[in-house]
Formats: sequence, structure tokens, C-alpha cells
Amino acid sequence: MSTGQGRSALPSETIASLEAIDVRFPTSAHLDGSDALNPEPDYSAAYVTIRTSGGAAGHGLAFTVGRGNDVAVAAVRALAPLAIGLPVDEVLADLGGFSQRLTGDSQLRWLGPNKGAIHMAAAAIVNAVWDLYGRREGKPVWQLLSELSPEQLVDLVDFRYLQDALTRDEALEILRRAEPGRAERTARLLEQGYPAYTTTPGWLGYSDEKLVRLSKEAVAEGFRLIKLKVGADLDADLRRLRLAREAVGPDVRIAVDANQAWGVPQAIDWMTRLAPYDPYWIEEPTSPDDILGHAAIRRAVAPVKVATGEHVHNQVMFKQMLQAGSLDVLQLDASRTAGVTENVAILLLAAKFGVPVCPHAGGVGLCEMVQHLAMFDYVAVSGSTEDRVIEYVDHLHEHFTDPVRIRDGHYLAPTAAGLSAEILPASVVEHSYPDGPVWSGTAA
Amino acid sequence: MSTGQGRSALPSETIASLEAIDVRFPTSAHLDGSDALNPEPDYSAAYVTIRTSGGAAGHGLAFTVGRGNDVAVAAVRALAPLAIGLPVDEVLADLGGFSQRLTGDSQLRWLGPNKGAIHMAAAAIVNAVWDLYGRREGKPVWQLLSELSPEQLVDLVDFRYLQDALTRDEALEILRRAEPGRAERTARLLEQGYPAYTTTPGWLGYSDEKLVRLSKEAVAEGFRLIKLKVGADLDADLRRLRLAREAVGPDVRIAVDANQAWGVPQAIDWMTRLAPYDPYWIEEPTSPDDILGHAAIRRAVAPVKVATGEHVHNQVMFKQMLQAGSLDVLQLDASRTAGVTENVAILLLAAKFGVPVCPHAGGVGLCEMVQHLAMFDYVAVSGSTEDRVIEYVDHLHEHFTDPVRIRDGHYLAPTAAGLSAEILPASVVEHSYPDGPVWSGTAA
Repeated sequence: MSTGQGRSALPSETIASLEAIDVRFPTSAHLDGSDALNPEPDYSAAYVTIRTSGGAAGHGLAFTVGRGNDVAVAAVRALAPLAIGLPVDEVLADLGGFSQRLTGDSQLRWLGPNKGAIHMAAAAIVNAVWDLYGRREGKPVWQLLSELSPEQLVDLVDFRYLQDALTRDEALEILRRAEPGRAERTARLLEQGYPAYTTTPGWLGYSDEKLVRLSKEAVAEGFRLIKLKVGADLDADLRRLRLAREAVGPDVRIAVDANQAWGVPQAIDWMTRLAPYDPYWIEEPTSPDDILGHAAIRRAVAPVKVATGEHVHNQVMFKQMLQAGSLDVLQLDASRTAGVTENVAILLLAAKFGVPVCPHAGGVGLCEMVQHLAMFDYVAVSGSTEDRVIEYVDHLHEHFTDPVRIRDGHYLAPTAAGLSAEILPASVVEHSYPDGPVWSGTAA
Repeated sequence: MSTGQGRSALPSETIASLEAIDVRFPTSAHLDGSDALNPEPDYSAAYVTIRTSGGAAGHGLAFTVGRGNDVAVAAVRALAPLAIGLPVDEVLADLGGFSQRLTGDSQLRWLGPNKGAIHMAAAAIVNAVWDLYGRREGKPVWQLLSELSPEQLVDLVDFRYLQDALTRDEALEILRRAEPGRAERTARLLEQGYPAYTTTPGWLGYSDEKLVRLSKEAVAEGFRLIKLKVGADLDADLRRLRLAREAVGPDVRIAVDANQAWGVPQAIDWMTRLAPYDPYWIEEPTSPDDILGHAAIRRAVAPVKVATGEHVHNQVMFKQMLQAGSLDVLQLDASRTAGVTENVAILLLAAKFGVPVCPHAGGVGLCEMVQHLAMFDYVAVSGSTEDRVIEYVDHLHEHFTDPVRIRDGHYLAPTAAGLSAEILPASVVEHSYPDGPVWSGTAA
């Protein structure tokens, strides 16, 4: 497959503009998305549109939960001069180099390095470029990635800080091992989709009645894993977990998610109390930076699994979590680390250590984007869907031009070209902050 | 000592305004501050001024290296509504709570949590409030801190994620052990100052002749430790380290600083090559996030010490570096972690693990701010200056109202009230970005 050469419209096509818009959805009004540390999120996006001099476009975003989305937009604008004017062919032929250009700028990296608002901004731009690439090739990004050669894929990876855990040769070996089965797995994926789990029943803001009703509905809809938010009140958690267990029966997995509420000893105590209801994994039991803390919790709460990732800010952190035995389940995020490119490295790390990847999703457009990563993992990296599920939350999909499609507890593989990250133009206008009609009080 | 009650002007005094200004110094023109990953920094500050309804003011800043300073300013402005309007007495009586208010906002914390631009912005605000507190009490902040009771000091600390390494009782025990010697050490500090080391000779952009000349001058000025930047070119590093060693003789310590240039195996190889010239510590050998990598390097390069901290983004990361044995020297920073308040926790962690703290400085105002932390550590926490030195770089002090004073290789203890972080009003105007005369091309 081409890496960008050959198909381009004009040899001189460049990135002509990079626009960042502050888009916010007023989700706090309904307590959707409420958890132990995020009581009232307004799901938001630093929404990026790249346009080329040839008239092509690519869309990407970094997800935030409301206030601070303006800071993410400012960070995108600070990075934009590093992208504008570059020849599109050169960018697409060296997406590893493009990512390092964004994350390695000698002045901007001081704000990270490779973390926080500046790294999320890099994600939004990198994702927009992958969207552009998919559109140009006429392929969904999962397929585009799955058709790159092992050599092209490892060229995406910055091995500087990974080499003590994963060398280029080891990464090549992983990808070559999976190569013979790509066609068969692609066919199976297109037919069956990729397993999903749902967080819809379990937000802290929901009543017991709503929890039970939504849990039963989830099982009826084909989900085999549901997730409950915990960590604010032990008695309430015991009650809600019991109710959910009664609602779904013994064979459906129930994950619980503390959203960083606990210190290490408290996490161990709390999970010991919840153990009788057979939780499948405990997600974000403590600070997402606490590699050694996660490892200590994992040793103590086994056979309950430990999951984390949505706030793990880069591949160096994931590397150590794998080295230290902190994780049973790796929950990469579409825009916390630097987008599709860094996530290729993270998928390779997970494959090296034999840890299943179950992407974080929900929010704005995260389901749309991470499905491409999980499907690529299945086709060309791990080669497996065993114990692997993509999070699904039924929020805000109606605002996307290529929304996720769920059937029988599975994500159906997207077939439209790109990364599925384009927000409907009318939704962008409506939800622009602070001047769009939803926020300025002029909505119909 | 009062924690804010009693001395206040009016019971209703509130934080009336919080201003953030983008101040940049064009240091890249002279290659001051050049290192392996920062070839052309323009030392900058997101400069914060808090004014109270009673007419008092406090100044703080977050340091950056140029581009991106606008993002830090945007982050300060995003946090400002959390501070404006609060009663000053309540803030000063619960500075631990104030810090958690800034870093724990349920929406803004998504940009971190506790890392990157939003955390640096919290540092700038927290530092400004400590400056205000010092001015109100008529004391330099090192003295203000050193006169708080052990109970008041531990109330500053958020133990949620620390308790597996440091409990409140252990922290109290450390502080109580140091209490009897406070007065004696204060007297000694006022007389002798606190040991400094200098990075002035060793920037990568300097010629060999300049390196040798500045190294000799440093020794003549009383410094017993100098630092050289390394990591861009092994042959050049060998030559420069040899020249520096010849210039200073065998008894002056020479630290080397790679500024994150290497992966783990490369760091070990490189330092093995430099070992014949007896480097004292290797600073930032690899990614600042790589706790396990630093520990592996430390095991391999001993007796050369491993130092890091200027990019270590919060107390949870330092906790793990201490738990994992990653560090011989802990280099806290005034505005990478959340300012004075979080640094109290980091000093307590270092004391618990018996690791000396040698603060990172240079940049804009970092020398001015960190001297207060190191002096407080000496008087009231570790009780020692053994193997402890504050970095000193002779840049930009002329822009501060209370610049550091160096005598015979020591920082003299500041005596003016506050945190020494106030920039001269004329310098702020002159260097405001992008409209100040220095940047708009209208400077005299």
C-alpha cells in the first residue's frame, strides 16, 4: 500500500489551514457522565479541522469535560504553526516524524513533555491528519492501518524511551506474526463486529431503579459486560453492585470504576468489601500516575483485575505499568496520548506484554475514534478479541457524520473513509462555546 | 504564629483580582540556556499578580521557555475564577485546601490531573498567594514556613495518594524531630547562607574557551560544584568534561545534565564513557516520567549519582521515584509542581527517604523562589545542608525587586517579606509578549 505517494492530487499540496473550535455539550444538566471525581461534566471537544491547499479536509478532536476546553484550544493553536505549510505527501509518508515534530518542539515541550493540555492538543492534530489520510485513501483508518506493512507501522513508533521494554525488532516480530491472518480476521470483523461493553447503566447520578432497568436492558441488548461507577460511598456501592448483580445474573461481567477516588490502602480495603459481588475489574483505583500503587493494588485484589489508561498520559507511563505488572486491562484513550500514532506504539507494548487492550470511550467522539484502534489491534497486532471489549456509552453520537453502529453488543466496523471524528457542521455551530446558541441562550 | 487570623486588615477582605501576563525574555539570541533538548529557549513567565480588596498584592509565576507561555497564561485565566472572591483570611488559614481547590476542580482536572499547563498555572497562583501571605506577615516565605507548627505544616499536605509511602503521623514525626534546632539553624543560615552550585559555565552553546574560563571563574567565586550540559555529541562531551575537570581540579564536583536526551541503555553506555572524568551526578538521563528507567540507570552507573526533578510533574511521581530507588538527588522545581504547598509535601517525602533536595533553578525567577524552599528544608525539615546545593544561574535577576544575593558560592537568606517573585513593573511592560517594546520592535 502507498504511504501517501502516488495518489496525491498535486505534488505541491500543503496543509493550508488548521482551525480549532471550542465545542461543548451541556451534559451536566442530566448527570450523564457523573462519577466519583467528575460530578458535573460538560462533554467537550477541542475540535480540529485541517484543510489542504487541494481542498481536502481532515477532522480530529481532543476530548475534555468542560472548563479548560479553551486551554486545549489554545494549545492546538500554539502547535498549529508546526503543521501549517507542510507538504501533505511528506506528512503522510512520515507520520512518526510528524508526531515527533509536534511533541518535540523545543519550546512547547516545556508544557509537558508529552502530557497535559499540550499533548492532548497534539492528539487532536494527529487524529485530524489520520482522518485526512484515510479519506485520501478511501479507507476507514482501522483498515488503512491494517494494510500498512510491519515496517511502515514500526516507523510510526518513537522507540527512544521504549527500547528497554520493546525494541524495533521485537515490534516487527509481533506484526509479522500477525500478518498471515489479517485477511481472515478482517472478514470476520466485517461480519461480526468487535465486542463492546456499556457504561450506560452505572453513572453515580442515576437512581437505583434506573440502574436496575438499564442493567437489564444492557443484557437484553447483547452486552456481556457492564460497568458501574463506585468510590463515593461504600454502602451505596455495595447496594448498587448487589442490585446490578441481581439484575444481570452471575454470567455477565460487572466492572467497577473508582475514577481515582482512593489511595492505595483504601483501594485495597474497598475492593475487599466489594469482592462478594464478583467485580470483574477495578478501573482507576487511584492516581493514574501511580504505577507502583496500581501494581500493589493488583497484587492485593486478585483475582479482580486492575484496569486503567484514560488518564495515563503517554507511552512511557504505559511501558512502566506493563513492566511493573500494574495492569490486567489497558484502557488506551484516543486523545489523552498523542492520537493514533502514539496509540500504535501502545498497542505494540500491550502485545509484547500479553495484556488485552480495552479502550476508554464515551465522552465526545471517543467511541468513534477508538473503534479504529481496537479493530486494527485485532486484525494486525494482537490478532485476538479474547477478553477485549471497547467501552460504549450512548451519548452524543447523533452529532457525528459517521456515528458508531452497535449491534448485539458489538461495534460494527466502520466502512466510511477516515477516523469517524467529523462533527456535523450544524452541531459545531450550535454548540460552539461561548457564542453558539446552546450557550448564549438563543437556542430554539 | 498566626495562620492569617488576627493580622488581617478587614474581616471581609477578599481576593479582588488575579491578573496573568505573558512575559518573555529574548534569551535565545545569546544561546544562554542551551542544552540537548532546548537549543533556543526564550525564558518566559506566566506572571501572576493577585490583588486583595484591601489593597494588598502577591506575585507568583510559572516558568516556561517561550512558545506555549500563552497556553500557561490561558490556564491561569481558566483557574482564576476559583480564587477570585475568596476571603483572604480563609485562604491563608487553609492553604492546603486552597491548593486542592485549584488542582481538584472537577472539570479543569481533566487537563491533568496534576500535570502540564494546568498544574503549572496552579503553581503560579499558589506561589502568588504565598507571596501575599509573607508580605502580610512581614516575613520572607522561608521564615514564614519555618515558624509554622508541625501540625500547620502537615495540614498543607494532601495525603490521599501518599499514604502508602508517608503518613500524616510520619510527617509530623519528621517535623517534630527538627523542631528543637530551628532557632540555631536559622541563625546559621542568616550568617552563612545556603550552598549554591552554578550551571553558568556549561551550556552547550558555549565555546571550549568560554567553558574553561567560566569554570575557573566559578571556582574562584567559591562554588564547589559546577554543571555541564551533555547528551548531544559524545566526543564533544568527553572533550568538554576533560577540559572542565582540568580547569577545576579533582576536588570540585562536576555534575552533568543530559536533559532527557537518552533511552535507558544509551544513558548507561554514555555515562560509562564519561565515568573517567568523575562526574558527580547525571541529571535527567532519560524521560522524566520513567521512574523504573531512572532506577535501572542508577543501579548501573553508581557511584555516579542520579538526579532529576525539574520535569517531574507532581508528588505522586516523586513518591514513586523515592519508593523505586530512582534518585540520589531530588531536584524540585518552583512551578512544575503546584508551588510552595505541594513542595512542602515533596520535602517531607524526601526527608522520609533520606534523599537530599537540590532544587532546580535558573530560568526566570526560579532561583528567587526555590531558595525559600531549600532554606525552609534546612531549618525545619531535613535540618541539614550536607550534599545539598541550590542551582544558580546568573540570568535575569536584574528584573526582580528582591533578586537573589550570592556570596562566596552561597545564597544569602532573603530578608524582604514574601517569595521574592515580583518582577519590576518596568520589566513587565518592556517584555510583555507580543506587544511590549522588546517584542514589537520598538525597544530603545
